[in-house]
Amino acid sequence: MPKLILVRHGQSEWNEKNLFTGWVDVKLSEIGEAEAKRAGELLVKEQVNPDILYTSLLSRAINTANIALAQTDRLWIPVKRSWRLNERHYGGLQGLDKADTLEKYGPEKFQTYRRSFDVPPPPIADDSEYSQKNEARYSHLPKDVIPATESLALVIDRLLPYYNDEIAKDLLEGKDVMVVAHGNSLRGLVKYLDNISDDDIAGLNIPTAIPLVFELDAKTLKPTKPYYYLDPEAAAAGAAAVANQGKK
Amino acid sequence: MPKLILVRHGQSEWNEKNLFTGWVDVKLSEIGEAEAKRAGELLVKEQVNPDILYTSLLSRAINTANIALAQTDRLWIPVKRSWRLNERHYGGLQGLDKADTLEKYGPEKFQTYRRSFDVPPPPIADDSEYSQKNEARYSHLPKDVIPATESLALVIDRLLPYYNDEIAKDLLEGKDVMVVAHGNSLRGLVKYLDNISDDDIAGLNIPTAIPLVFELDAKTLKPTKPYYYLDPEAAAAGAAAVANQGKK
Repeated sequence: MPKLILVRHGQSEWNEKNLFTGWVDVKLSEIGEAEAKRAGELLVKEQVNPDILYTSLLSRAINTANIALAQTDRLWIPVKRSWRLNERHYGGLQGLDKADTLEKYGPEKFQTYRRSFDVPPPPIADDSEYSQKNEARYSHLPKDVIPATESLALVIDRLLPYYNDEIAKDLLEGKDVMVVAHGNSLRGLVKYLDNISDDDIAGLNIPTAIPLVFELDAKTLKPTKPYYYLDPEAAAAGAAAVANQGKK
Repeated sequence: MPKLILVRHGQSEWNEKNLFTGWVDVKLSEIGEAEAKRAGELLVKEQVNPDILYTSLLSRAINTANIALAQTDRLWIPVKRSWRLNERHYGGLQGLDKADTLEKYGPEKFQTYRRSFDVPPPPIADDSEYSQKNEARYSHLPKDVIPATESLALVIDRLLPYYNDEIAKDLLEGKDVMVVAHGNSLRGLVKYLDNISDDDIAGLNIPTAIPLVFELDAKTLKPTKPYYYLDPEAAAAGAAAVANQGKK
């Protein structure tokens, strides 16, 4: 029975500063590095042994994976990376303070930008310092494919083809797959696997750096039981902290 | 003109203790981690920007690469790993103290085991704690392919097919390739690229964690000039230190 292990990256320097990050390549904070280490220790303690690693193209996810695996004896597993696992592109909000944005737009619009299923924030200008249109990291993509903003619906649209073509293939071969990515790309994946409605997904908050495990049917890749966290108590506390973001 | 960037892993816990390591999966020492960081800083300073990373399956090489790339903005580059880039398998010497081995076998045999081109050390027993026959890391290989000892000649035999099939393909596509590996697998590669004789290769010592750069002809992949280190002074000092190994 293949396992799908989802890990949200540890705290980044901008999570700490309460800024909208999206595709801006912010590094892990010291707390985030410690969280990543704990994620690896949980893998060892619970004897969860990924056979292959998937990451986004963003440093905070890659570093979380590297630090976590360095705690195990499985640094050697194959690695695949894709922009399709990236965080949601936060458009024109990238680089803005969350509390300031809350004040500027009011709680309703703020919550819409953060949690509505299909309303993207205003797009970012191509010449903004927080735009990714000219990053070497995405030079393998046609310019128009690099987003200027995304809703969760758009994240799911660009994520699922990769999940079904690449990740699912490894799962169907019986491999345990670890995906280290972001709050919103992982929410999209959980929504798909658990068939969560467009409305209900707003209430799902994934805590940082606590491995979340799906056990899947070997043929259908449907969950055989509810997903679980390797540290359920820490996960509950972490999810509450995410839900409170934006409040100063 | 594609670049081939070779990096020997930083000091490991067993380099520090002066033990023969080979395929034993020893971690980086604190000095080794600092060396890896310096390697990344050199890449940034000299504006060497690898497009793709190759590593062995051993943690000390993988961690060196991870730490080095974390200093750059290129953690996102694709990664491929292969046992064919592993250190030379040191056979029955794995786990033994180098100075003790020198005393036990005398300087001539000691130097033969360390530096002869085609005389492998005595093989390691399959049930030794330092054998790799039963490691999950190599479970994708037929048992007989996992070595019990290797000479440098045998390392080159298993390394070159991978170089010519995989690494060369990326170079021929014009990519700058970084290979993070080991003293002997990198000596094998330098021997091949610079057409060094079986006798002369004994005198080549590659220092730890100082990027060595080959600039290659785009079509023939022959070096267009002698390779160079990104920090030549540190490289000279480091190579001397390697040459003195085994002396207490």
